[in-house]
Amino acid sequence: MATLGDIGVAAAINILSAFVFFLAFAILRIQPVNDRVYFPKWYIKGLRSSPLGTGAFVGKIVNLDFRSYVRFLNWMPAALQMPEPELIDHAGLDSAVYLRIYLIGLKIFVPIAFLAFTILVPVNWTNNTLKLSNLTYSDLDKLSISNIPMGSTRFWTHLVMAYAFTFWTCYVLKKEYEIVASMRLHFLASEHRRPDQFTVLVRNVPPDPDESVSELVEHFFLVNHPDHYLTHQVVYNANKLSELVHKKKKMRNWLDYYQLKYSRNQSKKPSLKTGFLALWGTRVDAIDYYTSEIERLSKEISLERDKIVNNPKAIMPAAFVSFQTRWGAAVCAQTQQSRNPTIWLTEWAPEPRDIYWDNLAIPFVSLAVRRLIVAVAFFFLTFFFMIPIAFVQSLANIEGIEKAVPFLKPIIEMKAIKSFIQGFLPGIALKIFLIFLPSILMLMSKFEGFISLSGLERRSATRYYIFQFINVFLGSIITGTAFQQLNNFIHQSANNIPKTIGASIPMKATFFITYIMVDGWAGVAGEILRLKPLIIYHLKNFFLVKTEKDREEAMDPGTIGFNTGEPQIQLYFLLGLVYAVVAPILLPFIIVFFGLAYVVYRHQIINVYNQEYESAAAFWPDVHGRIIVALVVSQLLLMGLLSTKHAAQSTPLLVTLPVLTIWFHRFCKGRYEPAFIRYPLQEAMMKDTLERAREPNLNLKSFLQNAYIHPVFKGGDDSDYDEATEEGEKEPALVLTKRQSRRNTPLASKRSRSFSSLLPEDQEL
Amino acid sequence: MATLGDIGVAAAINILSAFVFFLAFAILRIQPVNDRVYFPKWYIKGLRSSPLGTGAFVGKIVNLDFRSYVRFLNWMPAALQMPEPELIDHAGLDSAVYLRIYLIGLKIFVPIAFLAFTILVPVNWTNNTLKLSNLTYSDLDKLSISNIPMGSTRFWTHLVMAYAFTFWTCYVLKKEYEIVASMRLHFLASEHRRPDQFTVLVRNVPPDPDESVSELVEHFFLVNHPDHYLTHQVVYNANKLSELVHKKKKMRNWLDYYQLKYSRNQSKKPSLKTGFLALWGTRVDAIDYYTSEIERLSKEISLERDKIVNNPKAIMPAAFVSFQTRWGAAVCAQTQQSRNPTIWLTEWAPEPRDIYWDNLAIPFVSLAVRRLIVAVAFFFLTFFFMIPIAFVQSLANIEGIEKAVPFLKPIIEMKAIKSFIQGFLPGIALKIFLIFLPSILMLMSKFEGFISLSGLERRSATRYYIFQFINVFLGSIITGTAFQQLNNFIHQSANNIPKTIGASIPMKATFFITYIMVDGWAGVAGEILRLKPLIIYHLKNFFLVKTEKDREEAMDPGTIGFNTGEPQIQLYFLLGLVYAVVAPILLPFIIVFFGLAYVVYRHQIINVYNQEYESAAAFWPDVHGRIIVALVVSQLLLMGLLSTKHAAQSTPLLVTLPVLTIWFHRFCKGRYEPAFIRYPLQEAMMKDTLERAREPNLNLKSFLQNAYIHPVFKGGDDSDYDEATEEGEKEPALVLTKRQSRRNTPLASKRSRSFSSLLPEDQEL
Repeated sequence: MATLGDIGVAAAINILSAFVFFLAFAILRIQPVNDRVYFPKWYIKGLRSSPLGTGAFVGKIVNLDFRSYVRFLNWMPAALQMPEPELIDHAGLDSAVYLRIYLIGLKIFVPIAFLAFTILVPVNWTNNTLKLSNLTYSDLDKLSISNIPMGSTRFWTHLVMAYAFTFWTCYVLKKEYEIVASMRLHFLASEHRRPDQFTVLVRNVPPDPDESVSELVEHFFLVNHPDHYLTHQVVYNANKLSELVHKKKKMRNWLDYYQLKYSRNQSKKPSLKTGFLALWGTRVDAIDYYTSEIERLSKEISLERDKIVNNPKAIMPAAFVSFQTRWGAAVCAQTQQSRNPTIWLTEWAPEPRDIYWDNLAIPFVSLAVRRLIVAVAFFFLTFFFMIPIAFVQSLANIEGIEKAVPFLKPIIEMKAIKSFIQGFLPGIALKIFLIFLPSILMLMSKFEGFISLSGLERRSATRYYIFQFINVFLGSIITGTAFQQLNNFIHQSANNIPKTIGASIPMKATFFITYIMVDGWAGVAGEILRLKPLIIYHLKNFFLVKTEKDREEAMDPGTIGFNTGEPQIQLYFLLGLVYAVVAPILLPFIIVFFGLAYVVYRHQIINVYNQEYESAAAFWPDVHGRIIVALVVSQLLLMGLLSTKHAAQSTPLLVTLPVLTIWFHRFCKGRYEPAFIRYPLQEAMMKDTLERAREPNLNLKSFLQNAYIHPVFKGGDDSDYDEATEEGEKEPALVLTKRQSRRNTPLASKRSRSFSSLLPEDQEL
Repeated sequence: MATLGDIGVAAAINILSAFVFFLAFAILRIQPVNDRVYFPKWYIKGLRSSPLGTGAFVGKIVNLDFRSYVRFLNWMPAALQMPEPELIDHAGLDSAVYLRIYLIGLKIFVPIAFLAFTILVPVNWTNNTLKLSNLTYSDLDKLSISNIPMGSTRFWTHLVMAYAFTFWTCYVLKKEYEIVASMRLHFLASEHRRPDQFTVLVRNVPPDPDESVSELVEHFFLVNHPDHYLTHQVVYNANKLSELVHKKKKMRNWLDYYQLKYSRNQSKKPSLKTGFLALWGTRVDAIDYYTSEIERLSKEISLERDKIVNNPKAIMPAAFVSFQTRWGAAVCAQTQQSRNPTIWLTEWAPEPRDIYWDNLAIPFVSLAVRRLIVAVAFFFLTFFFMIPIAFVQSLANIEGIEKAVPFLKPIIEMKAIKSFIQGFLPGIALKIFLIFLPSILMLMSKFEGFISLSGLERRSATRYYIFQFINVFLGSIITGTAFQQLNNFIHQSANNIPKTIGASIPMKATFFITYIMVDGWAGVAGEILRLKPLIIYHLKNFFLVKTEKDREEAMDPGTIGFNTGEPQIQLYFLLGLVYAVVAPILLPFIIVFFGLAYVVYRHQIINVYNQEYESAAAFWPDVHGRIIVALVVSQLLLMGLLSTKHAAQSTPLLVTLPVLTIWFHRFCKGRYEPAFIRYPLQEAMMKDTLERAREPNLNLKSFLQNAYIHPVFKGGDDSDYDEATEEGEKEPALVLTKRQSRRNTPLASKRSRSFSSLLPEDQEL
């Protein structure tokens, strides 16, 4: 293990790099020209429409107020100032609860670290096992369990601590589950009227020779929910149409680009080649080409649109059924409709913007097959992903390239380039794979047939966590590919597996400390800089933007990215819990990560990320479950470690821990999970009654009529996909209701003060 | 392994003993005096009230018609003649579907045996591996996989057969699941009006300072199910009362006994001692004593009854809530009511006679704790039950007895008795434990808090199966206690476990053949003789019976006993599937078991067993699941076995099998299981609509009012528990409905002919 000095140097480097990121951020963010990169959320919400510059033209690009450079870290307290209820209003419950994950990290690990440093560290330190042995060791090792002699009674301390840590973690988890569940229920209860409260998605409508899907749905629900059925909306298979619309949008972008170019430089008409990547083919006038292409596509689109509306085969056997009351919808979503449980499947409709339209028509049998295929594929991906990568690596050597493209040989043979390629190539395949992994996992989830974006992200997160657990956590502890591990584990006794892993845990503490600093500290600090969106925005701004609307489109606020972010946090929970008893020196590093990440992501959520959907914290059971997994893993590994230390008498006591933990998990599952899956009738009835009293003449039908139309049917010919979605959400607001679209919820009156306090001070309103 | 001859002798002995049982049965059953032992079902259903003797007094006790002795096996075709729909009418769907388990055994194993004997046996037989080896072997071994040389390509046959057997089993299982599910739905749809169709059990009603439980329930459901709520019935904690009633009934029995004794022998007034077991204490007049005791108890009962009715603390936080429509009940049972998912828990009310009243008031937290305790207790029971038994055995040796009761020493020291005790004692503790095991498991389930008898039996069956799997199946293959196995498995690699077990499977074929013959053949044949009820009935008949009603009570028809019967059948499925590929010689024995058991149990169900409850085949998912488990176990063990035979190239193909099987199970679960848990709204609506059309003036409230009153409140003062239950079921029939109580359903008209054909021919009506 490295010495304290080594760790200190590494820490210094990483703190410095984090500091540099923060400094760069502090300077960049107060330049008005970057305003749309660092504060897109405010533009999306319509609270800001142009950077609040200091006057002249130069002032609109560069910030000339030098006072603001001094207080370069004051975004941090600003990020922490917004109270949670306001945050929920501002960015949705999902984001607010997502931040609580970081807070849980602090709540769990700060007291644990305190206990560990006052009790465990002295107990470990006051031995001289390592001194007496001939092993090389460092001061860091003296703080860890390695310094306790074999079979010492001091292991009782670790045992008691394991119990204390488990109970504390469970206590925090239970409290937090309770809070999040009540936040969710409160959020659902205080929500404005939304179409998904009244709507149920029906899938696998059985084919009927005499009736169309629409008629069938109407009849079925009129018969079986006579007092509650209101209206329905069939689902069209508009995948091809939306592809065409998307294509047209791209064409229009290019047309805009060339028109702008031409208007700036009228002397030369822009032209392009029509072949592959615009490298080959005949040269044509660019503006003419795109104009005609767009015309062609417009025709095609209107043809396709007619085809979909008139062709009964374009109607998928699914429908959004709306009810007169929330009670009716809650009943329909939670019950079985038909005696054949694979038809007339009902479930809560996701929010309109949360729907993944492509998957709405997958039949039941096909779903089961898809699930099997994805399970097998994921197994192979996790355990055998190294095989194709090794294959690619073996191809991508210098000789291979020289053979494939002989004319490059002289260049490649140059010494500098050759060594660069040799050093770079072997790693690149793996790197590319890891970059694309979240997308691959997302594709898997899509193939599996989830119908909401939130569901897709949750499933991808689960898979990503498993992948990280096996390939990062286990892979770093027992060096070797996942497949080698699997092979080892199959040939080892169930008893030996925790021993093998447990025994090598203390040795890996330094590695994980470095990992936390590079991936956690510097990674989080890098997140705030948003280098990629910054560059892309300025490129787009320079080449494409003509109007304010274009500029708005050029913003790329991004989203929290639950499917990649949450598994990363979970890795830190795992590390923290595993090392809490074994090598408490790791804990401060994890606490710093959680603290830093909390501030950074709070800032990002307030100022940057766009909210793609609102699942009302439906992901919490997953988060809770994975922390429990980390807890059980830590207990098993401690058991393995202690049994190699001749402290076998502790085994029965340690076996009790996972049993209790799993029982605790099941208890929580029964107690709190239903709040995340079902919708209690009492709540529905309460909201219905209130609404009926307040608005007795409400025309609900017109409110719900168009809520669940496929986005491509909504916008006009000129609209693109995104626009359509947005419009789709706003549309219901046109009906006589007091509803306020999510995107412009915050009221200016009493909140404006606290909002403005979040802006850089020099940009005060 | 034993030779063919040995097996033949064992088979002959067992066939002979089965034959003797059948012969004894054939003679005993046609004696009119035994009529109530062998045909109690007909008495219970009210279709027969006295044995159909041939005239004189002697003819009422002994059958004098000698012709009937000749055709002593003709109960068998008679048992098979009743068609299934009639059987469902006669004995309920549970019984009819229970019989299908045996039929599945035949459906699975007959074709498998045919394939195995035409393909596998020749392939095994035409080797001379055993001949060339120096091992002792028998002809039986030559039929098994042991006769194939190491690494032979002939193992491909076994591999293909494993696939064929798996696909066939899955095909049969799927077909059967489909049939049973549709039988269940058809049964539920064609049922007469029953209170449980309209009623939902609500548990964990939250305490309220201002309202009583009854008021609270009424208000809650009036608010949240305004259009559907009809009435409700609170649950009283009448455990003490029912205990008193039970005690009084026992006293009355004794009083009857002594009165009868006195009336027979008027010279001597019967007396008894009041102390422990009537061995100590003052001697009193028995009739006076019991009369006064009964009087005292009657008073106590009426006091207790008043106390329960008037004391709000005797009302448990649970209620049976009835709805106006089946639709309303289906909705309430399937949805969550309150935002706190641990209060207002709703579920379908079981049939009134199926309710286990004592468990109705267990709160949620306590349920979770109980589940943990039972899980841990069951684990210890399964793996460590040998420890207390060994302890008892070590105490219960000759020396121990001599020390405890020194005055018995001279008797014990006698040689014959000593050797008897020494041979008998060590086994007796285990034997007693095994006899009481089902009761212990049932107690565990009761402690766990299930609220219906059917639920209790299902859970006990699951536990009994696990116990048998570990202690009988694994215990016989790897000799050693379960704990030793567990210890072995922990210290073995995951790879080695199937190898160890798989390798010893072929060697145990003879053992299991003998087991099947003793436990299966002779056991089933013994079941039909009903020796214990026969003896008890005649004892009671002699000592207690005065009136016809007493005689009816003296009958002990028993029930199918799902909790012990089904796990036993499952053991045969397991053996059959495991040995199908390895040693097909086992299959004929299993087929004979299934055939024999099918006939015997069909006869018993028609003529003997009383139906305690009707769960409409709710146990089928369990049955299906356990056969799948057996299938997966057989595949894993085959994999282990083949890998010890150097046929490793088959492993990937064999790994695919369990993956496919488990996937198949999940598919079936999704496709069919909901039919066993939920009640589709479509069905409910259909029945409601039909009923409304047929009986527009139905007074449902009076029909439901008293359906769910605790049995002790129903009968008069003189009634006993059983009577009350019976009355409870009949009571609703008094209301103006066409409903016919289950117990006297079959109509005489067109069915009487087929019924009579089931009676012994000499007793023709």
